[in-house]
Amino acid sequence: MRRLAWFVAAATTAFGVSLAGDEGMWTFDNVPRELIKARLGVEVGDAWLDPLRSSVVRLESGCTGSLVSGEGLVLTNHHCVQTCAAQNSSATDDLMAKGFLAGTRAEERRCQDEQVSVLVGMEQVTAQVVKATSGLSAAEANARRRQELTRLEQACEDQARGSGTPLKCEAVALYEGGQHWLYKYRRYADVRLVFAPEEDVAAFGGDPDNFQFPRWCLDMGLLRVYENGTPASTPTHLQVAWDGAPDGAPVFVAGHPGSTDRQLTVAELQAQRDVFLPFWLIRFSELRGRLIQYGKTSPEAARIAQDLLDGIENSLKVRRQEMAALLDDSLMARKTREEAELRERVMADAGLRAVAGDAWDQIATARRTWRDLVVPYVFLEVGHGFYSELFAHARHIVRAADERAKPNTDRLRGFTDAQLPQVEQTLRAATPIYPEFEQVRLSWSLERMREWLGPDDPLVRRVFGSDSPDRLARRLVEGTRLADPAVRLALYEGGAAAVAATDDPMIQLARAVDPRARELRAKYEAEVEGPSERAHEAIAAARFAVYGTTRYPDATFTLRLSYGTVRGWTERGQPVDPFTRLARLYERATGAPPFLLPPRWVEAKPRLDLSARANFVTTNDIVGGNSGSPMVDATGRIVGLVFDGNIHSIAGSYWFDETLNRTVAVHPDFIRVALTQVYPATHLARELGVK
Amino acid sequence: MRRLAWFVAAATTAFGVSLAGDEGMWTFDNVPRELIKARLGVEVGDAWLDPLRSSVVRLESGCTGSLVSGEGLVLTNHHCVQTCAAQNSSATDDLMAKGFLAGTRAEERRCQDEQVSVLVGMEQVTAQVVKATSGLSAAEANARRRQELTRLEQACEDQARGSGTPLKCEAVALYEGGQHWLYKYRRYADVRLVFAPEEDVAAFGGDPDNFQFPRWCLDMGLLRVYENGTPASTPTHLQVAWDGAPDGAPVFVAGHPGSTDRQLTVAELQAQRDVFLPFWLIRFSELRGRLIQYGKTSPEAARIAQDLLDGIENSLKVRRQEMAALLDDSLMARKTREEAELRERVMADAGLRAVAGDAWDQIATARRTWRDLVVPYVFLEVGHGFYSELFAHARHIVRAADERAKPNTDRLRGFTDAQLPQVEQTLRAATPIYPEFEQVRLSWSLERMREWLGPDDPLVRRVFGSDSPDRLARRLVEGTRLADPAVRLALYEGGAAAVAATDDPMIQLARAVDPRARELRAKYEAEVEGPSERAHEAIAAARFAVYGTTRYPDATFTLRLSYGTVRGWTERGQPVDPFTRLARLYERATGAPPFLLPPRWVEAKPRLDLSARANFVTTNDIVGGNSGSPMVDATGRIVGLVFDGNIHSIAGSYWFDETLNRTVAVHPDFIRVALTQVYPATHLARELGVK
Repeated sequence: MRRLAWFVAAATTAFGVSLAGDEGMWTFDNVPRELIKARLGVEVGDAWLDPLRSSVVRLESGCTGSLVSGEGLVLTNHHCVQTCAAQNSSATDDLMAKGFLAGTRAEERRCQDEQVSVLVGMEQVTAQVVKATSGLSAAEANARRRQELTRLEQACEDQARGSGTPLKCEAVALYEGGQHWLYKYRRYADVRLVFAPEEDVAAFGGDPDNFQFPRWCLDMGLLRVYENGTPASTPTHLQVAWDGAPDGAPVFVAGHPGSTDRQLTVAELQAQRDVFLPFWLIRFSELRGRLIQYGKTSPEAARIAQDLLDGIENSLKVRRQEMAALLDDSLMARKTREEAELRERVMADAGLRAVAGDAWDQIATARRTWRDLVVPYVFLEVGHGFYSELFAHARHIVRAADERAKPNTDRLRGFTDAQLPQVEQTLRAATPIYPEFEQVRLSWSLERMREWLGPDDPLVRRVFGSDSPDRLARRLVEGTRLADPAVRLALYEGGAAAVAATDDPMIQLARAVDPRARELRAKYEAEVEGPSERAHEAIAAARFAVYGTTRYPDATFTLRLSYGTVRGWTERGQPVDPFTRLARLYERATGAPPFLLPPRWVEAKPRLDLSARANFVTTNDIVGGNSGSPMVDATGRIVGLVFDGNIHSIAGSYWFDETLNRTVAVHPDFIRVALTQVYPATHLARELGVK
Repeated sequence: MRRLAWFVAAATTAFGVSLAGDEGMWTFDNVPRELIKARLGVEVGDAWLDPLRSSVVRLESGCTGSLVSGEGLVLTNHHCVQTCAAQNSSATDDLMAKGFLAGTRAEERRCQDEQVSVLVGMEQVTAQVVKATSGLSAAEANARRRQELTRLEQACEDQARGSGTPLKCEAVALYEGGQHWLYKYRRYADVRLVFAPEEDVAAFGGDPDNFQFPRWCLDMGLLRVYENGTPASTPTHLQVAWDGAPDGAPVFVAGHPGSTDRQLTVAELQAQRDVFLPFWLIRFSELRGRLIQYGKTSPEAARIAQDLLDGIENSLKVRRQEMAALLDDSLMARKTREEAELRERVMADAGLRAVAGDAWDQIATARRTWRDLVVPYVFLEVGHGFYSELFAHARHIVRAADERAKPNTDRLRGFTDAQLPQVEQTLRAATPIYPEFEQVRLSWSLERMREWLGPDDPLVRRVFGSDSPDRLARRLVEGTRLADPAVRLALYEGGAAAVAATDDPMIQLARAVDPRARELRAKYEAEVEGPSERAHEAIAAARFAVYGTTRYPDATFTLRLSYGTVRGWTERGQPVDPFTRLARLYERATGAPPFLLPPRWVEAKPRLDLSARANFVTTNDIVGGNSGSPMVDATGRIVGLVFDGNIHSIAGSYWFDETLNRTVAVHPDFIRVALTQVYPATHLARELGVK
């Protein structure tokens, strides 16, 4: 399970009707303490919450982790350290295939693209935002709100810097803009890989088993955060309860769920079902095929393609199930009923009618615009017409040159002073770029762009000239020098003049595309995002007024707490036991991927207790982004490492069903067995407190 | 545009409500002569219809054509002779790329897999079928009906053979089983390729332009039917009107539309939308990616993959648009309304209620079963888990061995005495089989079968053992000897004993799969097809009673007549002219596929009249299977060669919209220019009657 971060639909607030069992991804300022006590008999006080909050970390690449030692050790999933492992691999040293274990601190490997953040403060700023935007039109308010949020972020970071403790301050809209917050993070930019098992055991069962249970995956990885070149001191961290939690025990997941769509209106859900999901599924299914076939050309090609392929296969499963959920007419009918009820309540109250009476119609209008806009928007502005790392660099360079010339508050998101360090880190990262692989990706995306926009689209004609997708991809990849970080940084530093002067074909392409891409973005912001945000704010206000505030906001890749219990479920009449054990892992191995066990595990078998628990399920309400989350018991100790949901959990994008929806976690038993009996990792076992 | 033949959903009868403009694919026994006279002012009498019927041919591979000389010359589309051209190609002689022109009869090349049929008689047998099945349960009636139809076919063929004029007799259900017919064909098994232009000009614009208009494709091909080794004598054939028909002229298309779903119930449409189409689109999009990427490994790989890739890309466009049509809630609402109206009429009449009162509920029940059945059914019985030519041969051999041991009327469709010659022709055909390409296809289908059925499915475990999809595909393809027609025929002739004795791994696979595949088929026939057919028959009877018989049946790959006019349409406010001209073909050429013009056309440019018409559109109601159909004017002369529909025509699977739905045809002008000024084909031009 991965964060669905590349295209985030507008987020929203909670169900108007009653919660479904253990439903909810609660912000730490609004944990439903009474409800938890009533349902689970557990007292959740500040003394329990505060150290948990300080120990959970966000991996900026889209996962969660937790601090598990005083020296910056971070426990997360293998699939969350996979990109780092792949980037540190080469044809002769494949860390994905053979795993990685740093015997000493000096051997720990830098993750170039990773940053780790710890939430250290939360400040509500709703009043300031409301004040700044009151009395403005939707489009004006949208621009003004953005400026105000950028200003607040900047002021927050300036103040922290002045006090000697630099922080990353991020504006967060909750409840669809019903609340605005500043979330303040300590951010670690130096993150290193400590341990990753072989992919064959970490993702045992591969794509066929993904989102399935029973499961037997050692989906763990260890990172370490550094400060000034030495391991960070992290006195507040979590302990592991190595025996885990029994069937029926109350358990909690703290993490960063990425995105849910539980408060979309019916018009938005229909547009997702009719336009966006089919458009995505058809294109990325094809890319899956191209990557698989490319991988057959050589072992090195397979290695290079693996990381992207894993991500796409994961997303395909998610989006396929989302499509299935939205094609369920009874779900749509339920949503329609809930929406009608709330609208009725709104229309019956003069005050609410004035605020939100036309909100649903405004959203419906915006979605109609979006239906026409989405194809060119995704190809040209999101960049799916140029699906390559090199183009992403070119886009960053071209946009940074334009944006840095503007006042901070007028810039595109992503290019504010607060964001530029991340842009620079990306441009500087010495991660390998494989020309042939870039051509595979580019050729696919160019060909699909031409298909969907049509060969007679003026920009398509300009981009292609008389080239075929293959020839154009080759010309761009062979001609550009952007694979070299020094070239990228020089262009970035050189600004608009350097960008205008270069004959680099990828930069020239990014420049050629940019006017229309920006035009589409402007239209999207003015006619889709702006009106929708404002309308959702109005609906959120009405919902607060009608149903009160004992609800949770949709996921926004911010810290949340979920409560639940260790429990199996009933699948087509058959009970599913909540625990799996090592014995069946060995029985299931076939000797061929994705059911291949690494030699180390085959060799270790005789000395292992095969009744050790491998994976287990709970009723917690989670979603992509929660990968790597610590699962803790009533004493606050780790009893599981979240890495997946079952297949029913995917419909959790739109609703939660406690009878079927399950979180899947690695059991501490499996981790202990691995570190003490399979890998030469006693130093890490000790650091993790194995007795 | 190709026939959608691989998975034919249940077909049905016409709209209960009024026809939309030039709507309708009419059987020749029920041409709406009054309506045509009223709308178009054309008298359509027997003297006009009979020679047309005798001149239109069906290509058994899924197209239409027409006899255009007294010596068996057949005019059809390039994309209908493409498989023949590909099968006659080799690495050093690529008939797709460089085209093919037989300078003499001796040079004409046999199309191993093609047969050509001319409809010579139609006999209604509804009474016999009704009599045979009356008083039986749905499942019994289903089996009994099949036996009766097989018996009728056999009797018809026996009689024809006795009279010295062998015929192919096929039972045809029209109006969802409201009528049963025997269609009697003269069949030509010796079909040879006479002319195919280069694919670059035949399919100019390639996949991006497919289903689009304006268009500039020379999508023509010429075949010749042979009898006893010499060209068949075909005194009845069509003449070409080389100047075509002007804007607004009445035109008629005679051909074999493959399948429409205009009379599906709402429950069936929803199942198509929710289950079948996403399942298909996701899988075949991936195969598209694999074939494209495989094609990049060498020019020879590209050549080998092209034919299948073209077919898949065509089907992807069709199914994408079908999905879009079914996601249109207003279409679904219209269907729901129509259905409710008819049900109300039925329930209000005691007699109709007794016949059809519960028909819709029966269909809904059958569809629920189908939703659960479709995935294993498609992989195991349709064979999409083993998507390879070699497996198809193995399946034929294994099934023929079992079926031939049974009485004729008890056999599976496809293995009756009437069908066996076609099975034998397929097994005997010396078409090339490419082992590497077979592995690409097999590996994809095996991997997807394992994904969808799950790695723990007992049959999946048995098929795979400890193999990966790649390893299994290689083992099967390298181990089998079924690429050799002699081996196939020996096993076929050897029957059950030979099949049981062979160690050929592909035969063994087909045998291992067969029990479960047959079980799924039996369940499908008993619980889905049988009850649905019976319910549709009842609905058809009710519809006849309520709305009368002035309707047309859904397409069933049987001969139909469509009427219409030469006319453009309005696309997003812009008028689209009905004709394109050669000048723009040259302007649009880029020098790279799919916008590359063959050298012969580049060289010819100076001597051509660039105002010659290339392609044009009409309002005729057609669908896949109509490819290659002659379009004739009021005098019965050919004024166009149908090869495609515009993008709006795809929704024609479910409804016809005269404002947008257009047929696309090659103009005779383009054909004349090609044969007289570009290719050294004056002998063919003469045979076609060019003055």
